[in-house]
Amino acid sequence: MATEKQDQSTRQIRASVLHGAKDLRIETRELSPPSATELQVSIRSTGLCGSDLHYYRHYRNGDIIVKEPISLGHESAGVVVSVGTEVTNFNPGDKVALEVGLPCESCDRCKEGRYNICAGMKFRSSAKAFPHAQGTLQDRINHPAAWCHKLPDDMVLELGALLEPLSVAIQASRRAQLAPGSTVLVFGAGAVGLLVAAMAKISGAGTVVIADIDGGRVRFGVENKFAHKSFTVRMKRGSTIEEQLSIAKEIATEIGMMAKEGGGGEVGEVDAVFECTGVPSCVQASIFATRPGGKVLLIGMGTPVQTLPISAAALREVDIIGVFRYANTYPTGIEVVSKKGDDYPDFAKLVTHTYKGLESAVEAFDMAGRTKDDSGNLVIKVVLETGEEDKANL
Amino acid sequence: MATEKQDQSTRQIRASVLHGAKDLRIETRELSPPSATELQVSIRSTGLCGSDLHYYRHYRNGDIIVKEPISLGHESAGVVVSVGTEVTNFNPGDKVALEVGLPCESCDRCKEGRYNICAGMKFRSSAKAFPHAQGTLQDRINHPAAWCHKLPDDMVLELGALLEPLSVAIQASRRAQLAPGSTVLVFGAGAVGLLVAAMAKISGAGTVVIADIDGGRVRFGVENKFAHKSFTVRMKRGSTIEEQLSIAKEIATEIGMMAKEGGGGEVGEVDAVFECTGVPSCVQASIFATRPGGKVLLIGMGTPVQTLPISAAALREVDIIGVFRYANTYPTGIEVVSKKGDDYPDFAKLVTHTYKGLESAVEAFDMAGRTKDDSGNLVIKVVLETGEEDKANL
Amino acid sequence: MATEKQDQSTRQIRASVLHGAKDLRIETRELSPPSATELQVSIRSTGLCGSDLHYYRHYRNGDIIVKEPISLGHESAGVVVSVGTEVTNFNPGDKVALEVGLPCESCDRCKEGRYNICAGMKFRSSAKAFPHAQGTLQDRINHPAAWCHKLPDDMVLELGALLEPLSVAIQASRRAQLAPGSTVLVFGAGAVGLLVAAMAKISGAGTVVIADIDGGRVRFGVENKFAHKSFTVRMKRGSTIEEQLSIAKEIATEIGMMAKEGGGGEVGEVDAVFECTGVPSCVQASIFATRPGGKVLLIGMGTPVQTLPISAAALREVDIIGVFRYANTYPTGIEVVSKKGDDYPDFAKLVTHTYKGLESAVEAFDMAGRTKDDSGNLVIKVVLETGEEDKANL
Amino acid sequence: MATEKQDQSTRQIRASVLHGAKDLRIETRELSPPSATELQVSIRSTGLCGSDLHYYRHYRNGDIIVKEPISLGHESAGVVVSVGTEVTNFNPGDKVALEVGLPCESCDRCKEGRYNICAGMKFRSSAKAFPHAQGTLQDRINHPAAWCHKLPDDMVLELGALLEPLSVAIQASRRAQLAPGSTVLVFGAGAVGLLVAAMAKISGAGTVVIADIDGGRVRFGVENKFAHKSFTVRMKRGSTIEEQLSIAKEIATEIGMMAKEGGGGEVGEVDAVFECTGVPSCVQASIFATRPGGKVLLIGMGTPVQTLPISAAALREVDIIGVFRYANTYPTGIEVVSKKGDDYPDFAKLVTHTYKGLESAVEAFDMAGRTKDDSGNLVIKVVLETGEEDKANL
Repeated sequence: MATEKQDQSTRQIRASVLHGAKDLRIETRELSPPSATELQVSIRSTGLCGSDLHYYRHYRNGDIIVKEPISLGHESAGVVVSVGTEVTNFNPGDKVALEVGLPCESCDRCKEGRYNICAGMKFRSSAKAFPHAQGTLQDRINHPAAWCHKLPDDMVLELGALLEPLSVAIQASRRAQLAPGSTVLVFGAGAVGLLVAAMAKISGAGTVVIADIDGGRVRFGVENKFAHKSFTVRMKRGSTIEEQLSIAKEIATEIGMMAKEGGGGEVGEVDAVFECTGVPSCVQASIFATRPGGKVLLIGMGTPVQTLPISAAALREVDIIGVFRYANTYPTGIEVVSKKGDDYPDFAKLVTHTYKGLESAVEAFDMAGRTKDDSGNLVIKVVLETGEEDKANL
Repeated sequence: MATEKQDQSTRQIRASVLHGAKDLRIETRELSPPSATELQVSIRSTGLCGSDLHYYRHYRNGDIIVKEPISLGHESAGVVVSVGTEVTNFNPGDKVALEVGLPCESCDRCKEGRYNICAGMKFRSSAKAFPHAQGTLQDRINHPAAWCHKLPDDMVLELGALLEPLSVAIQASRRAQLAPGSTVLVFGAGAVGLLVAAMAKISGAGTVVIADIDGGRVRFGVENKFAHKSFTVRMKRGSTIEEQLSIAKEIATEIGMMAKEGGGGEVGEVDAVFECTGVPSCVQASIFATRPGGKVLLIGMGTPVQTLPISAAALREVDIIGVFRYANTYPTGIEVVSKKGDDYPDFAKLVTHTYKGLESAVEAFDMAGRTKDDSGNLVIKVVLETGEEDKANL
Repeated sequence: MATEKQDQSTRQIRASVLHGAKDLRIETRELSPPSATELQVSIRSTGLCGSDLHYYRHYRNGDIIVKEPISLGHESAGVVVSVGTEVTNFNPGDKVALEVGLPCESCDRCKEGRYNICAGMKFRSSAKAFPHAQGTLQDRINHPAAWCHKLPDDMVLELGALLEPLSVAIQASRRAQLAPGSTVLVFGAGAVGLLVAAMAKISGAGTVVIADIDGGRVRFGVENKFAHKSFTVRMKRGSTIEEQLSIAKEIATEIGMMAKEGGGGEVGEVDAVFECTGVPSCVQASIFATRPGGKVLLIGMGTPVQTLPISAAALREVDIIGVFRYANTYPTGIEVVSKKGDDYPDFAKLVTHTYKGLESAVEAFDMAGRTKDDSGNLVIKVVLETGEEDKANL
Repeated sequence: MATEKQDQSTRQIRASVLHGAKDLRIETRELSPPSATELQVSIRSTGLCGSDLHYYRHYRNGDIIVKEPISLGHESAGVVVSVGTEVTNFNPGDKVALEVGLPCESCDRCKEGRYNICAGMKFRSSAKAFPHAQGTLQDRINHPAAWCHKLPDDMVLELGALLEPLSVAIQASRRAQLAPGSTVLVFGAGAVGLLVAAMAKISGAGTVVIADIDGGRVRFGVENKFAHKSFTVRMKRGSTIEEQLSIAKEIATEIGMMAKEGGGGEVGEVDAVFECTGVPSCVQASIFATRPGGKVLLIGMGTPVQTLPISAAALREVDIIGVFRYANTYPTGIEVVSKKGDDYPDFAKLVTHTYKGLESAVEAFDMAGRTKDDSGNLVIKVVLETGEEDKANL
């Protein structure tokens, strides 16, 4: 095991750094020892996320434009290699997951525990704050111990990397305040949609339907116990808003009937819809699919301005609830991915593709941008495994 | 006082009945004695509401088309003239306010106490259910005692009529879960907007700003203690959605700065916005004006499909909460309008115009459709006073 | 199948009627046809409950003294034999579970959906209201259709009878507002305790510990998937309140350490404790076992006045939450008992003893009063199967 | 004004330090300049609290024994004299209120915003943590800027000192989740009880009754607009628990009848009772006075183990909610004390006695221990005004 002493001086590490659209370079950076309240963590497993991919492809993410070279990566787990002098609850060798958003800790939102919507948040791999908070696609990083979460010794670090998107699902599930036995619909069967479905199921939903235009993805969801039922949305596009809304209503009715086995009809049947696509037609269908007094959770982003049947929500007290990242979710997430069971979501299955070494980042991003690989297998979560040298040293 | 005996047979009453757009006729109807669980109430004071006005003008209300002649009126108070045999808690002569929506009482929503969103609701003066539930613009009606609310003997019945729109405000205020000291913005200074502002103030909001394009109305709101501050929205219309959103953002920023006296800026400052206009530009501004983690309450209707900056809500966990009518609000409402104080909203001031007798209904509706009367006074709530004959008898 | 016609006249049925302590008699009663809004139900399966047993043994239940002969039984399912003229959603032959508490439906509690605490509640087999609402240990009863819950055709009626105690567990689980991943402790491994544990597990609790002085019962709970972990409480009684509290603290610490595997210590570790024994030492231990900001749910009754370490609750904002019966739980309950899975609670196992026919009621009550049968098997839930004649007729 | 430079070196200040029961000494301490994130504050106004008084009299507070000399005082406001290098939102001369509890900011409770129940809390003037966090009865202290709250320039600092006990009231009011129009009962008309009543009133409670054995205090409460109604509890003590409970029930019934003007009876009438005495008979009466589904808020401390009619709570789902200090209350408190109005609580009236200078601490404590002064005036809040020298310098 690395002694603490050898880590108490500045060292050189390698980082995967984005300099422009699709211009990813391996660079050497200086890394000082961790400060008194930090850990130095050897990054081992990093999932690639949609926002990483946007930055990689366009050097921007929606309105947010990159202003200086930036390391991507924020779904990470690793191993502690060095411990700040005031940190008492971690030791070198500990497995940890990183909570990469550092809130200001002094605004009203932080103090009331909703630090995910802190206006001063510094979130690794995001170009929103300047200077940018550098992402985790580096050999090692220093990170506040208070925002590191110890993992069980026997946990595979890939699962540790999944805790970040799972946190979004936990946040969504909490904001939904699902009653046991609820009927739930999830639009979108990507990694986040599947995790959201899983959390709804684990939280006691009686029926979780996962819907997507890709039949293979929703079948994957049911086969691997992320959802109870699947629904394949047929592609169809209205040319006017009236046509679009009428299509959305149709989809909502079909899903409602399926969810309730013969129920359905004019009003929605679903207690909560988790919208993970950000596509307006799905948001519209979400509103129609929800029962009076139910909730639509907005998780998917991508279309900032949308035309919505807002009265169909308001007149039935269907609430439209935002979900942005997460707060206080990691301990729950660790609990959740630690369990197993015949009917329990098989979280490890979400990692469909892994690549080794920072130098594979380009390959990994290319795969993350596809829906299927060359063999026709689904691409759900692509993970980059790093830190081989560190592993040798420990 | 009318003896009970004389009411135990069918009698003839007069009703104001709408037969087509602007075709209001006084007709005679047969009224049987109240059933065992009903009261017979002499209607004395009825406020005219926007939905009444829509029916009066167009013989429809949005998508809802009138299918048979209908009495309008649902904001009513009156005096009990006869009591069903099983009713023990009312006596002839009691003043009552009528809660005119009769829910099914057996669906899940009813059983869980959210009867306002019962799909089987029969709401007087609405043409949604068929046969239509007849409104209160009649000499007398029979109404279930369980949905009548006894008023203090000394309460003016005009205040009793205000309890219906006040109930919407109470519902909004509850759904907002305002913390004491909150900063609140109300869009729209009509009767509902003013009542919503008053309820927010009474519920402990620290700053209530009322905004409208009509400077006279917002001043009225502040002068009569419905709100702390007023804001006059300047008319301005963007030709593209981008322009509209940019205008909405501007308005939101201005209001935010005013609400917080020098605060404001990029993110919203307001804890909760109560949108009582239904106008898309106001809904857009509501979203921008709300602080991260705050709420937008949708109370105003009228534009069923709207183009909204939905990510500006979701990414800041600004929740969009529907408010539809009310449930379990009357006891609170009676408590609220019974109070007085130097800094307390002067509810009676809302009734700006009163007319006497069912035969004045046309005149009353015409006034209710105006914003100012011939003398230039604001028209806020128009009330029709009826039941003169009954008064003579009691 | 019985035709409706044959049920449209008054008929004679048999009832098991309690006339005094342990004085249970089979009597003949007249049963009129169901009223317009009622169903006539042939009772098939009735679980015996602790309150039934108290009445049987003492002709009273705590403070509530029986004032006239009373049929016991309130955990019942059966088959519809006749349908009131206004009932449209049931047919003869339908399996139903009976929700036997009939609230007033007009008080504030009823209207807000908390009908379980309606002061005017008439609950079958309880002697609280007078005349007493007669229990279900009868061949048939007439019951409002609005309070009957249709069961799937393939559901065993024993499971239908379990819905009543399961409803208490659902109520407890909802009042606890458990977050997914919570650590939960249940005191008491009788039928209610086991059901409460099961509901906490189904609602997403990460760790459910069930504790009882009977090691067999808690092992039963874990083996049949009602809980994750078991804890056997050692009998020990302090002679002073200080000693008692110190013992309670000890138990709490031990359970906390076990629940968290090595955690524990001065403050509690458990997010929510469901107290199902009513024994003061367990309530005391519940308070100590709960973490700051957690909840103690009081489900077990029996000791109306207790000496409690109330500051140990208040100073840590540990809330003490009452659970009394249930409201709006049956649809969820039907969903819950309809599921199966390797790791899912095996609800059918709770019915450890069944007896056939009203005439076996005495035998059944005697068994219900024991903890083990002659063969040493646990006695958890005793069910009386009735309605053989009806079965022949249908 | 003091220049910042002159504060950038260690200086000598005077502190009032408790060395044993009633052994209060003025001592000189060294005060280093504020750290980068701290302010140095000249303390100007400090309210004396019951816990201060316990320490002063007994050198302990309940179970908590003082282990080293300690400065008392935690209800304080003052003026910034020096600003840490990283602090940007404060300037010398700013008036501030001090939030004197410093939570760990890394435990689950802190992260979820309930830092008041952080197990690692360091609260000034409390001997719970060791070394003890020194109280504010000193000329100056250094305090983290994040836990200082800027006051309006025109606010009297005595009101700033009231923000600490007011914070308890705000916490209580939030935890009660009062609906507008609620009927509220407050037991205890000391400073905290009066503030709790005021917050309930401001939060929209329709009727606030304040009850105490001292008729003068409750009259004071009503006269100064802290409550709507007063109730004087007659002293009476039962010799058995049954007698005590029966007395408690009687009191509860009387108050209920008074609160509802003729209502009352067997069940409680009050939506929420705020218990601020800690006396078992009042806690008992609180439970009886609360309506089914209502809440009892435990604010008063002093009797850690109590014998309570716990079934009377649980069987009616009356929840017993702890209130311990406060979290995120200061901004609201500043808003609350800044308002004025004819019917608004006159907060300044709570400060009945003021003393000048640290050397008056003994006198001030003696007065704080009395209920009336020599002239027969009520003693509610005693405030010590300090920092005269600093005032001269600024």
